[in-house]
Amino acid sequence: MKQYATLYKNELLNEVIPFWEKYSIDAAFGGYFTCISETNEIYDTDKFIWLQARQVWMFATLYTIIQPKEEWKQIALLGADFLEKYGRDPSGAWYFSLNREGKPLVQPYNIFSDCFAAMAFGALYKIDPKDRYAEIAMNTFKNIIKRQENTKGKFNKVYPGTRELQNFALPMILCNLSLELKHLLELEEVEHITDTIIHKILNQFYHKESGLVLENIGINGEFVDSFEGRLLNPGHAIEAMWFIMNLGIAENNNALVQKAEQIMYQQLEYGWDEKYGGIFYFMDINGHPPQQLEHDQKLWWVHLETLVALAKTYAYNQNPKAKQWFEKVHDYTWTHFRDKKNGGEWYGYLNRQGDVSLPLKGGKWKGCFHVPRALMEVWKTLDT
Amino acid sequence: MKQYATLYKNELLNEVIPFWEKYSIDAAFGGYFTCISETNEIYDTDKFIWLQARQVWMFATLYTIIQPKEEWKQIALLGADFLEKYGRDPSGAWYFSLNREGKPLVQPYNIFSDCFAAMAFGALYKIDPKDRYAEIAMNTFKNIIKRQENTKGKFNKVYPGTRELQNFALPMILCNLSLELKHLLELEEVEHITDTIIHKILNQFYHKESGLVLENIGINGEFVDSFEGRLLNPGHAIEAMWFIMNLGIAENNNALVQKAEQIMYQQLEYGWDEKYGGIFYFMDINGHPPQQLEHDQKLWWVHLETLVALAKTYAYNQNPKAKQWFEKVHDYTWTHFRDKKNGGEWYGYLNRQGDVSLPLKGGKWKGCFHVPRALMEVWKTLDT
Repeated sequence: MKQYATLYKNELLNEVIPFWEKYSIDAAFGGYFTCISETNEIYDTDKFIWLQARQVWMFATLYTIIQPKEEWKQIALLGADFLEKYGRDPSGAWYFSLNREGKPLVQPYNIFSDCFAAMAFGALYKIDPKDRYAEIAMNTFKNIIKRQENTKGKFNKVYPGTRELQNFALPMILCNLSLELKHLLELEEVEHITDTIIHKILNQFYHKESGLVLENIGINGEFVDSFEGRLLNPGHAIEAMWFIMNLGIAENNNALVQKAEQIMYQQLEYGWDEKYGGIFYFMDINGHPPQQLEHDQKLWWVHLETLVALAKTYAYNQNPKAKQWFEKVHDYTWTHFRDKKNGGEWYGYLNRQGDVSLPLKGGKWKGCFHVPRALMEVWKTLDT
Repeated sequence: MKQYATLYKNELLNEVIPFWEKYSIDAAFGGYFTCISETNEIYDTDKFIWLQARQVWMFATLYTIIQPKEEWKQIALLGADFLEKYGRDPSGAWYFSLNREGKPLVQPYNIFSDCFAAMAFGALYKIDPKDRYAEIAMNTFKNIIKRQENTKGKFNKVYPGTRELQNFALPMILCNLSLELKHLLELEEVEHITDTIIHKILNQFYHKESGLVLENIGINGEFVDSFEGRLLNPGHAIEAMWFIMNLGIAENNNALVQKAEQIMYQQLEYGWDEKYGGIFYFMDINGHPPQQLEHDQKLWWVHLETLVALAKTYAYNQNPKAKQWFEKVHDYTWTHFRDKKNGGEWYGYLNRQGDVSLPLKGGKWKGCFHVPRALMEVWKTLDT
């Protein structure tokens, strides 16, 4: 498996990172462009907070983990300055998007802006330990914890009392975020949060009868037979499992790592498209038609997060099953998402058959994050 | 073209309407099931207000236009009773969805619930002229007019002042709705509304430089270079053009009918997929990747509304161009959306290649509406 470490490293350092260094920098207004076509043209200049924050995190993390390159620090600071100046409403909640100049476009209806902003400033503080970066990270984190029962606030369209659901995304991200902010939080707080979340994921979102992880469950953890309640997102569940593996490894908790590994395989086997290869985006646990029209598409992040999970599993136990699956997913991913013609960042959206459906390198929901993070994680995990 | 009238009539009366009569009735709780699989199973029991209202409208309209069958009236009343009992919040705004029993699930964030409820009770009043049906229709209509500047109310996520947009859907639906409620409104009011809307559609949403109809424009009618501002939805624009043709025909306004016809062809030629046939769902006016992952899918309503527009055009001027396009779209639609194996209602969602992507007859966004309405419209239009 060691040969993969070199491959992933080269792709990260020679293709993907240079792409973002070269094309995403908005020298005039600060922050980053993320809407970049396959011919490297900027086709939209709006700034989506969570993508801005993810790129800050990425460059700060490259500086910390790979090499303290001054250019990487400057790129992280370019986005952080923009976020600090324009990103928050008067209550400290992070907008969803801004225009190129930094004027707010879409209100803070989406807590993931906040999650990635906290991650960004937490990572930035590691490479530039200014008090205010730690403060932004911590205040944002506290805000998230305060908002976690009703993350959408007044934008929540659910009528109270009839069918209230818990969504998988927030516990999953909090699990990662509390590890990311370990250097700023009290150890007890981290442990309390991660224990609660792991319990919730493994005992509530994990649906024992089917062995699958649900995207939405009832208030008491029950299965709810509705479009939302039946929804599966295999890539999401697999990504969460590598967060939990990280926690298990950090805590020397063998049983936890094995549990996460087992659940990961179950999602992967269920989500794999036997006909065309690749992992489905959305499924219905009862096999009904999901409401998402894009349900059978193949998305870059699903496959990249799966590679990270498999690399971590293999590094942990050298099991041939992990190797086999890694190679199968690797072949699909590198064949279909990588841009063999133009290089640089990878494609993100394929149809079920595996053809590029949206010929973009970045967009409203795809920035400098899953490809470089996964390349870095796989490289570092297998390079031992 | 007369042979098509018989074909469309038979499909309506022998396949599509019997399907909804047989499988959609919720005898236990009232209202209709809309989530029905290709094997005629109910896979979800939630009640989506706009689909409930559309089915009331459809059965009341069949009674008015085709034949005063008592069963059709009873089916219309079943949905109307359910809507009247459970559909509105205390302010009279219509919820987005209810559970099977009628308890609210999703708040009135979407004004299209109201638009179709007004249409439903307006049509019901024609076949059962109870004062309270007229009142519900009129109060709802007044509410829509009052809410039209900010249809989403507190659920509106747009930050005020930076980039406020007008969306095409509401003027388009109001144009149809004011004709549908003609028997309840003052003539002057209808004329004022339709004149204003036609002006807005033909001079603002219609983008002269490209000949295309925009889904979103700025407050002063200007083109806005953003994901929303660049968005095209050819089927939506084509549907609006047959509403405008209807208005033009009703007013004996030849120039208006011809203008609508010309714009209709432009959308159709631009939206047609030369490679696989069919009309794209979403496009970007500058050819950039749209944000909708389902952009290149082929949707039933797009094709059925186009057939209505072409039939109306042909009936108006017997131009061979209308006949050629009608036959081309007819062949694609009947080959790909019609369920040759099981009959009944048609499929709704195909991938770009034309294969069924979601094997459902009805769902959260597809009920008893576009297929039967179009079959009825084409039949009645060509049967002269």
